[in-house]
Amino acid sequence: MVSRKEAITVKLNQVTEDVLKVIDSYGFKQEGAYNLRLNGMAVCHGDSRHIAIVKKTDLPGIDIRISSEAQNEQVHIPVVMSEPGLDVVYNDFYVEDGADVTIVAGCGIHGEGCSETRHDGIHTFHVGKNANVKYVENHYAEGNGTGGKILNPVTKIYVGENSVFTLETTQIKGVDSTKRETFVELGPNAKLYVTEKLMTHDAQHAISNMEVKLNGEGSSARIISRSVAKGTSNQIFHPKAIGNNACHAHVQCDSIIMDKASISSIPEINANHIDAQIIHEAAIGRINDEQLIKLRTFGMTEEEAEAVIIENFLN
Amino acid sequence: MVSRKEAITVKLNQVTEDVLKVIDSYGFKQEGAYNLRLNGMAVCHGDSRHIAIVKKTDLPGIDIRISSEAQNEQVHIPVVMSEPGLDVVYNDFYVEDGADVTIVAGCGIHGEGCSETRHDGIHTFHVGKNANVKYVENHYAEGNGTGGKILNPVTKIYVGENSVFTLETTQIKGVDSTKRETFVELGPNAKLYVTEKLMTHDAQHAISNMEVKLNGEGSSARIISRSVAKGTSNQIFHPKAIGNNACHAHVQCDSIIMDKASISSIPEINANHIDAQIIHEAAIGRINDEQLIKLRTFGMTEEEAEAVIIENFLN
Repeated sequence: MVSRKEAITVKLNQVTEDVLKVIDSYGFKQEGAYNLRLNGMAVCHGDSRHIAIVKKTDLPGIDIRISSEAQNEQVHIPVVMSEPGLDVVYNDFYVEDGADVTIVAGCGIHGEGCSETRHDGIHTFHVGKNANVKYVENHYAEGNGTGGKILNPVTKIYVGENSVFTLETTQIKGVDSTKRETFVELGPNAKLYVTEKLMTHDAQHAISNMEVKLNGEGSSARIISRSVAKGTSNQIFHPKAIGNNACHAHVQCDSIIMDKASISSIPEINANHIDAQIIHEAAIGRINDEQLIKLRTFGMTEEEAEAVIIENFLN
Repeated sequence: MVSRKEAITVKLNQVTEDVLKVIDSYGFKQEGAYNLRLNGMAVCHGDSRHIAIVKKTDLPGIDIRISSEAQNEQVHIPVVMSEPGLDVVYNDFYVEDGADVTIVAGCGIHGEGCSETRHDGIHTFHVGKNANVKYVENHYAEGNGTGGKILNPVTKIYVGENSVFTLETTQIKGVDSTKRETFVELGPNAKLYVTEKLMTHDAQHAISNMEVKLNGEGSSARIISRSVAKGTSNQIFHPKAIGNNACHAHVQCDSIIMDKASISSIPEINANHIDAQIIHEAAIGRINDEQLIKLRTFGMTEEEAEAVIIENFLN
């Protein structure tokens, strides 16, 4: 059990409330363990019996300490930026042996001006043995501002023996430029499940680099990436699975290309052990014409039918 | 019809004859269109009615001119090195519209000394319209010499409208180090079929980079790579399919890893057009245990059973 402080409920404005609704699909409340970072400042924060959030003293950001006693618990740490500027934050998660926790993060930008709004979240997960961690991260930007809306997350994940780590990351819309860097190291019998969903439109750019080292005997990884590129947007995926022990990995990247968009998929599979079994599949193509025709016979416009197909593809 | 010179038959020694048997699976004869390069020198050469081989005046190597009238014809241009040293050769193939030809190349090294033997063949194919070209290239090295046996081929292929280019490349065994560079550009409705087979053993290294640009409307590519890495050998594959127009591409890499070997597969698929459909599949794993057990119940030793499975996998 970790120490607990009394939380003070803070009144949030409508823009912040609206952005939170989009980026926190579990529903953000000022209850339990939570930390809301607004325009580079922690504006409200609470601990729970088994989860303590401690402000860092050396760097901007927080340490989130999740005790073994946390079972089927949640912690919410959303970031909202409604003013331009650069916000860099370092969050470290310490998950004790046997904990079972869902961490709901995400960043939403509301940009009205002509200046750039950028958030770089550097998240590091130190996961003990026999733990079960689900990390959900939604990225979203809105607003009529012409200033770039930029999100460059760095995610480092160290998974201990017999632990399961599930990473669900979604770029919903509105993000002009993103560069994701994800590093994972898996211990013995550790399991990684990654689902990455990404949608770009207009002249947006997205780069996603992911490196998964299967170091432990019996470790496994399943990485699913689904993306849609519209307009003149450009996406580059570079997932890398490195089998250093007896392990299984399956990487699957599926992309839909529309309009004048372009997508590169550069998966790398690397087997350094005779019992490393690694499979990769990737496909890039346009929207399924038969599905389009079928939906249009139900009376949908082309745009409506495309929207339904894309939503299905990403879900 | 191209001009034709009288060929003089040359007596070859046993080592050369033996190496030729391995690298020219169609059977090398001093008949029709052929050119044998031995230790950096063209030792025998012949033209056919429709295929002329002309020694370059500016660089080491030959120009091979294949006329439209060539139908179902062969040209053989093997290289044998039985003495150490570096041989760099530039061969250019000019294939006229409508020609139908099989080009049998390949390089065999017989090395007995402690000095390095290395062959760098830079082959460029200029293929017109409606042509059908099959290019077969086998690489092989033998001999008890401790000197490195190295083959670094560069292959550039430009395929014109409606033409079909089939590339069959095989590294049989014995090659200590190889770095393959292959570039292909496909015109409208051009078709490319690639089958790459590669076997490494002991402490060998192999790198294969391949870039296929599908520039023409209706162009297509099917690339199949199969490899086996034994001992402490290391292989790196980097095939790249770039769809710049309405096109289809399918890249498939399957590898068997044995002993202490390591394999990296880094396929890149790049769609720059809404009607570019590109699929990639890659798998790395060990020999199928069930097949091994089945063959051993037939009385085979483990080595024999492995040899049968590998031969089947590569064929």
